[in-house]
Amino acid sequence: MEGHGEGALAAGLRVIGFASDFGTRDPYVGICHAVIARIDPALRVIDLGHEIPAGDIRGGAALIAQAAPFLPAPPVLLAVVDPGVGTERAGLVVRTGRDALLVGPDNGLLSWAAAALGGAVSAYAIENRALMLEPRSNTFHGRDVFAPVAARLALGLDPSTVGPALPVQQLVRLPDPVVRIEPGCLTAEILMVDRYGNLQTAARLEQLAAARGHGSVPGPDGAVTVEADGHTLAATVGTTYGSVPPGEAVVYGDSAGLVAIALNGADAAAVLHVGPGDLVRIKS
Amino acid sequence: MEGHGEGALAAGLRVIGFASDFGTRDPYVGICHAVIARIDPALRVIDLGHEIPAGDIRGGAALIAQAAPFLPAPPVLLAVVDPGVGTERAGLVVRTGRDALLVGPDNGLLSWAAAALGGAVSAYAIENRALMLEPRSNTFHGRDVFAPVAARLALGLDPSTVGPALPVQQLVRLPDPVVRIEPGCLTAEILMVDRYGNLQTAARLEQLAAARGHGSVPGPDGAVTVEADGHTLAATVGTTYGSVPPGEAVVYGDSAGLVAIALNGADAAAVLHVGPGDLVRIKS
Amino acid sequence: MEGHGEGALAAGLRVIGFASDFGTRDPYVGICHAVIARIDPALRVIDLGHEIPAGDIRGGAALIAQAAPFLPAPPVLLAVVDPGVGTERAGLVVRTGRDALLVGPDNGLLSWAAAALGGAVSAYAIENRALMLEPRSNTFHGRDVFAPVAARLALGLDPSTVGPALPVQQLVRLPDPVVRIEPGCLTAEILMVDRYGNLQTAARLEQLAAARGHGSVPGPDGAVTVEADGHTLAATVGTTYGSVPPGEAVVYGDSAGLVAIALNGADAAAVLHVGPGDLVRIKS
Repeated sequence: MEGHGEGALAAGLRVIGFASDFGTRDPYVGICHAVIARIDPALRVIDLGHEIPAGDIRGGAALIAQAAPFLPAPPVLLAVVDPGVGTERAGLVVRTGRDALLVGPDNGLLSWAAAALGGAVSAYAIENRALMLEPRSNTFHGRDVFAPVAARLALGLDPSTVGPALPVQQLVRLPDPVVRIEPGCLTAEILMVDRYGNLQTAARLEQLAAARGHGSVPGPDGAVTVEADGHTLAATVGTTYGSVPPGEAVVYGDSAGLVAIALNGADAAAVLHVGPGDLVRIKS
Repeated sequence: MEGHGEGALAAGLRVIGFASDFGTRDPYVGICHAVIARIDPALRVIDLGHEIPAGDIRGGAALIAQAAPFLPAPPVLLAVVDPGVGTERAGLVVRTGRDALLVGPDNGLLSWAAAALGGAVSAYAIENRALMLEPRSNTFHGRDVFAPVAARLALGLDPSTVGPALPVQQLVRLPDPVVRIEPGCLTAEILMVDRYGNLQTAARLEQLAAARGHGSVPGPDGAVTVEADGHTLAATVGTTYGSVPPGEAVVYGDSAGLVAIALNGADAAAVLHVGPGDLVRIKS
Repeated sequence: MEGHGEGALAAGLRVIGFASDFGTRDPYVGICHAVIARIDPALRVIDLGHEIPAGDIRGGAALIAQAAPFLPAPPVLLAVVDPGVGTERAGLVVRTGRDALLVGPDNGLLSWAAAALGGAVSAYAIENRALMLEPRSNTFHGRDVFAPVAARLALGLDPSTVGPALPVQQLVRLPDPVVRIEPGCLTAEILMVDRYGNLQTAARLEQLAAARGHGSVPGPDGAVTVEADGHTLAATVGTTYGSVPPGEAVVYGDSAGLVAIALNGADAAAVLHVGPGDLVRIKS
């Protein structure tokens, strides 16, 4: 933890990234912001997304793994998708190879973000009641446990202060998403569907190239077929939505470096009837 | 008002909590933030929720009463659910027993938050045009009246500066929500339904215990029946969602200390067909 | 650019207004905030709205034109509705007569805001790779191009540093919305429909007065008829929703000084079956 947050400290402001499935209709997100501001109003919280579907640990894990690397380094990340709140599941602080500190429940939510930030190096179970709000509720540990701990970590608290060390091998991990490379066919699990209906798969662009038998990343020239859930779509490998005429399908490397499928100006998820966790096949 | 905001001032940042029914699709929330930043860009605004249903004073009152106590003390709260904007209804600053300053229309919206923050001690009608944006619109007093007044109060303005004192007895109050204790039956009004479909009632946990004939708060052991709108649900008194198997119903004390009803991993409001303002009966 | 942002600089905080069609379900907005915080965590970002319909340049242009004038002057505005991302369309910095700096794609999105802020005075194509994130994606220039440029402009970067000057006459402009004044009839295009269902037209209040044959802005006395898409509504010219009984229609000058149509306590857009881009006729 030496040197954690020094860049931000030098500028006089420390930043916490915050994601949850709380939604924005209820006051839960604002209450967590308020709890952090009570500890230090100079702490800045960047909302990475609170519309993760209720209880969707996998969707939350995908979202924070993509967003957290853009936070000021080294990041403090507060993440809460916690259907098991108040049960025996532990609350965690995970420190990663890039000195990120991830705070949230031990249910797999943090596992992909930890991997994206250098891998889990150490972990601690949050048990120190002196760091929590009292009385601590049984159903809102975002407010009572995770937000105050994240605030104090951002202020420089040593993570070992929160409670006993846990072997990182024992942390709950989500299974890796499916990516299968066969000659002429890439099978990949959909990680996220965004607002535009663009499908982000778990495959990297090089894996598509490998399946297509190229030595290098494909240029904007190839025709492919996209199959999902019985639907088939003719598509072109390109670089952006505008690589194809309006309404047509493009397969491209998206802003996270992953293989994605979009319709120019339309909703690919609606046309293919697929969502996160479903498999797509890209055949050439 | 002596000493108001000193804790936050010492840290160099003053905080305003902000809730409204403006929604986040339109630019209204951002415009209010901008108006506050024009007055002092160092003022920090914490959004407590802007998806209060349009014109739902009661829903807004419930939300801010729960969120405001978590703001850095003493809080400045800006709250706007204002279907009577531009009519004769007064704009208010209410000071409470805990030195909170509440800013919003005199339509009952602030009444439950005032009670939660020590009760209304003094109140002022906002009439001082020098504190408002000019030209003042007839339909957006959030921008033109309430936001600039909240900003100036957070900067230390004495609330009596905004206009003439009003007797606190004359402020519009919402009726208290229904809570009825009978032997073996607690009847309670639903205050809020959250994103998860959990039903928060207006009853405190002790009131459930009283109805069940216990001298103390019930442990996670008792079977009860929940009735609402002709639907009946077998439930268990527990401490959290995971106190019962997936799909089953739990009655518990929620993070606000109120009696709530949830289905573990499912949507209780959808199953019982109820919402805010409806009554539920918990029978043992 | 001399003196740009000095007011905010004096207070130690610089403010960026930010609007997009990214939605709040995906992490895109948070990632842009994070990218700005990496450049300087003291920069403050005010979200003006991210629920602009996907790809709706016209809706985005209307939103930012209304919100940007309320930002601390002179404003820096980051706006992204960019269906042509990654194609030949330029990325822009536009400086206006009031020293605002607008950052976004050259697709017309910025044109109404530029007009509202004193008109475009100079413009530059963003081509300086040293200001962008590397590797630069083809589909998320909000993150890789526009956010980092906006951050650096807010910190005082001279806009000519971003790339070559463009003649302001060559910038893409949206066509002006329809407003037609005839004796006894004002025809106007709907600019925005807000959460309450209120219809904001492109006509100014003086234009309604001109159509009605008055020399001055009408008082709250006149009966008019509103026609749209085959539906007809009796309405009263008033000042606010409460100028008419609940459920009745009022024509008024809204908080942007534009002619608007509302039902007191109900949704005018739903009743008239209209939305942005449709025409309404107000007849007296």
